[in-house]
Amino acid sequence: MARQLSIAAFMMRHGHHVAAWRHPQTDLVSNPFKVFQQQVRNAERACLDAVFFADSLALTGGVPALEPLTLLSALAASTERIGLIGTATTTYNEPYTVARQFASLDQISDGRAGWNLVTSDNAAEAANFGRDQHVAHAARYERAREFHQVVTGLWDSWDADAFVNDKEGARLFDPARLHKLNHRGMHFAVAGPLNVARSPQGRPVVVQAGGSEAGRDLAAETAEVVFTAQPTLAKAQDFYRDIKRRVVEKGRAAESLKIMPGLFAVVGRTQAEADDKFAQLQALIEPKAGLALLGRMIGNFDLSAYPLDGPLPELPQTQDGQRSRQQLLTDLAQGENLTIRQLYERIAGGRGHFTVVGTTEAVADQMQAWFEQEAADGFNIMAPSLPGGLDDFLTLVVPELQRRGLFRTAYQGSTLRKHLGL
Amino acid sequence: MARQLSIAAFMMRHGHHVAAWRHPQTDLVSNPFKVFQQQVRNAERACLDAVFFADSLALTGGVPALEPLTLLSALAASTERIGLIGTATTTYNEPYTVARQFASLDQISDGRAGWNLVTSDNAAEAANFGRDQHVAHAARYERAREFHQVVTGLWDSWDADAFVNDKEGARLFDPARLHKLNHRGMHFAVAGPLNVARSPQGRPVVVQAGGSEAGRDLAAETAEVVFTAQPTLAKAQDFYRDIKRRVVEKGRAAESLKIMPGLFAVVGRTQAEADDKFAQLQALIEPKAGLALLGRMIGNFDLSAYPLDGPLPELPQTQDGQRSRQQLLTDLAQGENLTIRQLYERIAGGRGHFTVVGTTEAVADQMQAWFEQEAADGFNIMAPSLPGGLDDFLTLVVPELQRRGLFRTAYQGSTLRKHLGL
Repeated sequence: MARQLSIAAFMMRHGHHVAAWRHPQTDLVSNPFKVFQQQVRNAERACLDAVFFADSLALTGGVPALEPLTLLSALAASTERIGLIGTATTTYNEPYTVARQFASLDQISDGRAGWNLVTSDNAAEAANFGRDQHVAHAARYERAREFHQVVTGLWDSWDADAFVNDKEGARLFDPARLHKLNHRGMHFAVAGPLNVARSPQGRPVVVQAGGSEAGRDLAAETAEVVFTAQPTLAKAQDFYRDIKRRVVEKGRAAESLKIMPGLFAVVGRTQAEADDKFAQLQALIEPKAGLALLGRMIGNFDLSAYPLDGPLPELPQTQDGQRSRQQLLTDLAQGENLTIRQLYERIAGGRGHFTVVGTTEAVADQMQAWFEQEAADGFNIMAPSLPGGLDDFLTLVVPELQRRGLFRTAYQGSTLRKHLGL
Repeated sequence: MARQLSIAAFMMRHGHHVAAWRHPQTDLVSNPFKVFQQQVRNAERACLDAVFFADSLALTGGVPALEPLTLLSALAASTERIGLIGTATTTYNEPYTVARQFASLDQISDGRAGWNLVTSDNAAEAANFGRDQHVAHAARYERAREFHQVVTGLWDSWDADAFVNDKEGARLFDPARLHKLNHRGMHFAVAGPLNVARSPQGRPVVVQAGGSEAGRDLAAETAEVVFTAQPTLAKAQDFYRDIKRRVVEKGRAAESLKIMPGLFAVVGRTQAEADDKFAQLQALIEPKAGLALLGRMIGNFDLSAYPLDGPLPELPQTQDGQRSRQQLLTDLAQGENLTIRQLYERIAGGRGHFTVVGTTEAVADQMQAWFEQEAADGFNIMAPSLPGGLDDFLTLVVPELQRRGLFRTAYQGSTLRKHLGL
């Protein structure tokens, strides 16, 4: 079979557009778990590789969320095949806890768990964990690398054949196949073993999204999937080449890491329908919400003192994380000479990710071009609003990709690792 | 309606008897989540108040487990009404994380979450969290008290009417009804607010199980349910009186805290059947496993050098936690002049909890006596083995309690708090 696209649905309460909550179809009242449950079942029916949930350890963007590990576990019990990727930071967690919770999710789901390893990069999160300042970039990545080492070491506590289940002989497992970790490093001392049995995947799939030098190096060394924000084919190709080169330099096969850019897709049966859908959301952007989003994404700056229809002011390099996102947005504003309002309108949906507003065929054409021209191994789909935005992608674009032989029409295996071809 | 019993099922992989895994009916092969899912659905059919899962941050007893928050979230999606109580330690977690995960579970489950607040008391757990020694008793309780204060404070971040959901007016919530915590204490500095919306119960139910002076005081101040190990009616009455007195001294109503001793029940249609079931399990105890259990429960001492059929040696007071459990077992051995083997056989099932091996009527009689004679507001049922041990209780004892008017025949509400009458 020809190389196949990997597709995840990047789930966000109300959808990704900053005004999605104001969309007439958006359900603000039901239990949000029930809303996600329906959406994720639809994504499973379309044979998507996975659903993905981001995370934050502070209230950002003014919209509360469910915590990813609890949410994904509940979704595991509601589905059979689709992968379940959740975010957990290495900055304010303990590796024993993260290793346990993902191993447990992997058991519960029969092998469908993925861990999006991130570092925490803003002051609001720090303030919820006893710190006045967030941890500096270099220290965060040092800690993240050691954290990954401990977590994966703990996942290897039990050999696949450790359990002998010999009731007669009173031997539940073979102690020789259980390994203590005895890790002692710069940041962590963890004895092990993990008190969760080896999970069906052995190790849940490790996902990363860092764009900095340190982030790219860590991904090349340890990640199996990279999510990334790339606005154009050319930039995505640069990123793709760079990461694959680093992967090979680390002694790994290029295919052992899948690169999945975000795709904010507004799909219509005609171009006019797609344009109307997008315009409907854009018209719902309150300037205050647009400014807050832009300020947050450009490095946590307050832009409310500047005229909306004037240029983006010169900003110092952010001391919070997301420097690569800051650069991307500054380049965009300068390159196209955008006002503040135009800039926040530009990112209100895709937030700097690849954005397509078009017909089923147009969206599929773009995906195919990126896939065939070494810009992407797959995509992380960002629905503009829920439920309609995701349904459009699942019912229009997925069948078109299937017709083109680019995407599966049935799951071939039962684990996330298998879906991704890892 | 007359005062009703509260009943929780204390779930443990394989069941509570130390040899349960060797029972012919015990399923060692299936996904353990699926095994629990079936059991918990049965418990819901019997209208139990809740299921309860203990926790450990190290491999204790040689049996790996699922992590409680992930497991309970998956069970939330598998049930409709039964309460879901999980353990999370205050010693090696961060309050922001614990507050989020339980608030999220409470949302997912439509108001059925309970948090069993514990302190971590053994060296094996410490070694998984960067410490050579576990935290001393007094410091643990100080931290636990402040931890509880932060978690409940975070749960109150959003007023019940904070969300106005005004799409037209672009007002999702009223900022005046969102509260930052700004906690700065001895152990924690947490700004808040919580990034999970107010959960259906407002605050998930807080459960505790500490038996020490500090533990009882903390429970009287903050707990809504107390689990406890009481071997006899008289001791349970002492404990009940003591805790209720402390509750009233703290200015709370005596009924605002429910006392639920553990009950290890082996039920038969006849006494002979019950005896046979128990004997079958007792015959499966390997001396090595019995010794390990006893050593662990009596304060983490290695007893393998002492003759099995000799007396329990004098032991120093444990420096690990569980001093009250150590006292209980030492008293038992001395009071009845038990050998080491007899002592581990005595605790191999109930582990020092109230134990009844008898007919449906005998078990119901004991429960009724404890309930009516101020020894218990309810029970935490410890099934000897799974699935049979729990099924016996649910299908034999529960209907008998219902016939006696002591237990509901249908759920009256949808939240754990409502089931417990809190």
